[in-house]
Amino acid sequence: MKRTHLFVVAVYLLSSCRAEEGLSFPTYDGKDRVVSLTEKNFKQVLKKYDLLCLYYHEPVSSDKVAQKQFQMKEIVLELVAQVLEHKDIGFVMVDAKKEAKLAKKLGFDEEGSLYVLKGDRTIEFDGEFAADVLVEFLLDLIEDPVEIINSKLEVQAFERIEDHIKLIGFFKSEDSEYYKAFEEAAEHFQPYIKFFATFDKGVAKKLSLKMNEVDFYEPFMDEPIAIPDKPYTEEELVEFVKEHQRPTLRRLRPEDMFETWEDDLNGIHIVAFAERSDPDGYEFLEILKQVARDNTDNPDLSIVWIDPDDFPLLVAYWEKTFKIDLFKPQIGVVNVTDADSVWMEIPDGDDLPTAEELEDWIEDVLSGKINTEDDDSEDEEDEEDDDDNDDDDDNSDEGDDDSDDDDD
Amino acid sequence: MKRTHLFVVAVYLLSSCRAEEGLSFPTYDGKDRVVSLTEKNFKQVLKKYDLLCLYYHEPVSSDKVAQKQFQMKEIVLELVAQVLEHKDIGFVMVDAKKEAKLAKKLGFDEEGSLYVLKGDRTIEFDGEFAADVLVEFLLDLIEDPVEIINSKLEVQAFERIEDHIKLIGFFKSEDSEYYKAFEEAAEHFQPYIKFFATFDKGVAKKLSLKMNEVDFYEPFMDEPIAIPDKPYTEEELVEFVKEHQRPTLRRLRPEDMFETWEDDLNGIHIVAFAERSDPDGYEFLEILKQVARDNTDNPDLSIVWIDPDDFPLLVAYWEKTFKIDLFKPQIGVVNVTDADSVWMEIPDGDDLPTAEELEDWIEDVLSGKINTEDDDSEDEEDEEDDDDNDDDDDNSDEGDDDSDDDDD
Repeated sequence: MKRTHLFVVAVYLLSSCRAEEGLSFPTYDGKDRVVSLTEKNFKQVLKKYDLLCLYYHEPVSSDKVAQKQFQMKEIVLELVAQVLEHKDIGFVMVDAKKEAKLAKKLGFDEEGSLYVLKGDRTIEFDGEFAADVLVEFLLDLIEDPVEIINSKLEVQAFERIEDHIKLIGFFKSEDSEYYKAFEEAAEHFQPYIKFFATFDKGVAKKLSLKMNEVDFYEPFMDEPIAIPDKPYTEEELVEFVKEHQRPTLRRLRPEDMFETWEDDLNGIHIVAFAERSDPDGYEFLEILKQVARDNTDNPDLSIVWIDPDDFPLLVAYWEKTFKIDLFKPQIGVVNVTDADSVWMEIPDGDDLPTAEELEDWIEDVLSGKINTEDDDSEDEEDEEDDDDNDDDDDNSDEGDDDSDDDDD
Repeated sequence: MKRTHLFVVAVYLLSSCRAEEGLSFPTYDGKDRVVSLTEKNFKQVLKKYDLLCLYYHEPVSSDKVAQKQFQMKEIVLELVAQVLEHKDIGFVMVDAKKEAKLAKKLGFDEEGSLYVLKGDRTIEFDGEFAADVLVEFLLDLIEDPVEIINSKLEVQAFERIEDHIKLIGFFKSEDSEYYKAFEEAAEHFQPYIKFFATFDKGVAKKLSLKMNEVDFYEPFMDEPIAIPDKPYTEEELVEFVKEHQRPTLRRLRPEDMFETWEDDLNGIHIVAFAERSDPDGYEFLEILKQVARDNTDNPDLSIVWIDPDDFPLLVAYWEKTFKIDLFKPQIGVVNVTDADSVWMEIPDGDDLPTAEELEDWIEDVLSGKINTEDDDSEDEEDEEDDDDNDDDDDNSDEGDDDSDDDDD
């Protein structure tokens, strides 16, 4: 591929002056592993790998900033390609203008997206474009789509997973046609949704699973839903999962954060910040789970939980954008078009709202009583119209200061 | 500071073409925030910030590779400085040659290290030199050194923390002199070791804490050790923690991975790989915990547990260096000088060793019966001396292939 110079190469650095061996972070070695895909080399490249990772990009412009951003994406991809060199994964670039025909054939529509071809499936990566996140995503994709649960300890491991959707089915054996349908269904959602299976009667009993039954677990819910009308075809399973894919409480994850964010409800997200490793944050998350359990049947409610520990580089950005302190738990409404927001007033971590108070607040959000626009109009009218807002304390004080260039 | 050109700037990229707002990763804006520290500006700079972050580096050489590595560290620091701009943290470079006198005064001895000055303390950062890890480390450092536990839910949160050392004390109030000693002691270990306290009788009762008592929890142990001879001075607490700082089972963490690795026992580490989010990995970790609990009094045993999920960029490197498959649990002995290693034979994830089998294997490692050298000599002598090794199956097969340039 035609390559602009890559001056600075390594994103993660080798700590080169240490005597010990065993922990050497990779540095980009400068070799070109990412190739440009064309109609001519497409078939040959595709045949060569189990997995093909395609970066679908707009034509590189003459704009310097855009060029640098493109170079950085290239470097991230080159580093990922280097790190996974022995894993049989190909990495290519697809120029949206030059290869428009090919892109159309592949069904690519969003420039700047990363797609992965695996067999006859196309998987879109819509997460943080960072080498570590990408590597983990790809490693998860080359694992088996279904994880087998064999023992009581593994049941414990299965039960501990609470912060994303999981499914488990009980089948006679790996050769069962119903297991095969389950496996095919799993491939539609790999690596975002985890599918488990067991062939062990004891395990099935522990999980109250009947033969050929598949249970669907919504995040943070104790009880699963048994998918009705077993046994199922692949299509029935896929359809059920798609219908139930938006949970009442969901965790923002680096590997699909943008997809989650794009899945807003009427242009807003209810966002809760809680650091699970912190006692206040843990407590707040427990309250959120309670609220989610009480409201699991409300299709209009989907709270996005963000653990600041998962996004260290965004903490200061969020504090500035939303004008909140992330050393304590927070819950608010965010308008996804302009990131305008209002936040519930939580005096401090020792005085968290109860589940009931939270539910009242959420009700006010869903009814529009609390919204991100009211405080804006107050600002515009120089706060003369304070009584526009006929509630006592449904808006946080922190929404009042709305200046955009607060620079101190 | 004299600055070489920084051509490529952003480590984490703004996804610029999205319509949604609220998740913008920072890109380095090109402003210089990291300054060179000299004897002349030292006092002034120090006075200006709550926290001062110093990168102590060898003189920038004329070697191109070294220059690029230095530039990358600079960019990481600049990005961290930008992200934390409003947090009152200063960032400086200290040239080991030009500022030798100043460095000596500050007690810096290892070039390439990052130090943080907070009040009269110097904290060394010995973790992964990546922007996200550094930001989290610094955010943890500006929090209060002691976390207060007020409620039953917070006790649950406290109890859930099992993979690093934690301490908790019960005191009359924040004004208690014993609490103050505890707080001072906490500052010695912040942010690596977490200190908790409670002023609540109910919480103290739940944790079986007497007034002014401090309990020390080793990672993965159910029962704490009550530190003897309460009440304690700051020095007594610090001394106790230092004496008990090397646990029987410890998790490798990005924020202090190099420090952990340097703390080897006779040049070796017993290393266990287990992915906690995977059922096999979870099961293996449970077995490891059992082994650790049974052997907690053995000062010669400290197993380093690595969750591959914490280090996506190192997975392929480890698989290549150690010649193992990290899709399943592994345990082995690693020589830290040359990364030579031998691994226990584990047929697959469904057939994990029992705690007893693991203990026998560990005993053979500690006695030297299993070691990283035996298979080397076999190799050197073209495997004619197979019987050197008087055990049946204490060495893994995977140690046999020792070629260094296995390139496929």
